Amino acid sequence: MAQELYYEDFYIGEKFQSAGSAKVSAEEIKEFGQKYDPQPFHLDEAAGEGSFFKGLAASGWLTAAIVMRLRVQSIRVFGGMIGAGVEEMRWTEPVRPGDTIRTEIEVVGMRRSTSRKNYGIVRTTTLAYNQDDKVVLRSTVNFLAPLRNPA
Amino acid sequence: MAQELYYEDFYIGEKFQSAGSAKVSAEEIKEFGQKYDPQPFHLDEAAGEGSFFKGLAASGWLTAAIVMRLRVQSIRVFGGMIGAGVEEMRWTEPVRPGDTIRTEIEVVGMRRSTSRKNYGIVRTTTLAYNQDDKVVLRSTVNFLAPLRNPA
Repeated sequence: MAQELYYEDFYIGEKFQSAGSAKVSAEEIKEFGQKYDPQPFHLDEAAGEGSFFKGLAASGWLTAAIVMRLRVQSIRVFGGMIGAGVEEMRWTEPVRPGDTIRTEIEVVGMRRSTSRKNYGIVRTTTLAYNQDDKVVLRSTVNFLAPLRNPA
Repeated sequence: MAQELYYEDFYIGEKFQSAGSAKVSAEEIKEFGQKYDPQPFHLDEAAGEGSFFKGLAASGWLTAAIVMRLRVQSIRVFGGMIGAGVEEMRWTEPVRPGDTIRTEIEVVGMRRSTSRKNYGIVRTTTLAYNQDDKVVLRSTVNFLAPLRNPA
């Protein structure tokens, strides 16, 4: 298990390769779609064929959730990775049944929190790739990291 | 069932009240946490007590997924609501077991797509409230809407 990181352990330009990858099944796409994004192209192959996506495709929010799991696996923050907002997120390619997703994360910003004195805010960009090395999602997301030595 | 909307049907300043609401259970929080955000405060009440959240709290990505379902229920786009990116998203209060979430959506921008000639891009802000009328999530998200009369 990787070391649990404090704010002081991060630096701008630091990169985290995916600690694992995630294979996405038709079953998972449909189950998530039924629960959270019940639109035909997330539920049914035939309905997907006649849609914008020309086939069954994962909800972008399923892709985002899978990316969160990969982020949590790839960066171990002391006390947990607590989200502090999304600056931007783009879905750049559909995620299809059978795709395997991995992430590359880079630290692009760091600052002390003004409202939470014992925390810093780490800004990261994430690129999520499929098995063909196509980017399926990119995002800029902030998380809190506790200070090792609060003043 | 509400009318299915084309790009031309939307206008800036238009508001959509939540077509329904979503009650969030401890079971749903834990199930989503196990699948997509396996951190103690999303999995277990006791572990949550000792954490940043001081109790079991929903993954922000579960809240985002629930908000997507409410958005799909509240705005019916012809051919489906196809995401065209998140401009910003903030989690402003924890979502707890038993909370009931509803949304208010406002159209804040509209433009024709340059890459997809038969579509326009509708930019919306969403405020998601809990049962105490506290905002738990706010976001600015774009979706595609087909032109009724492509030139």
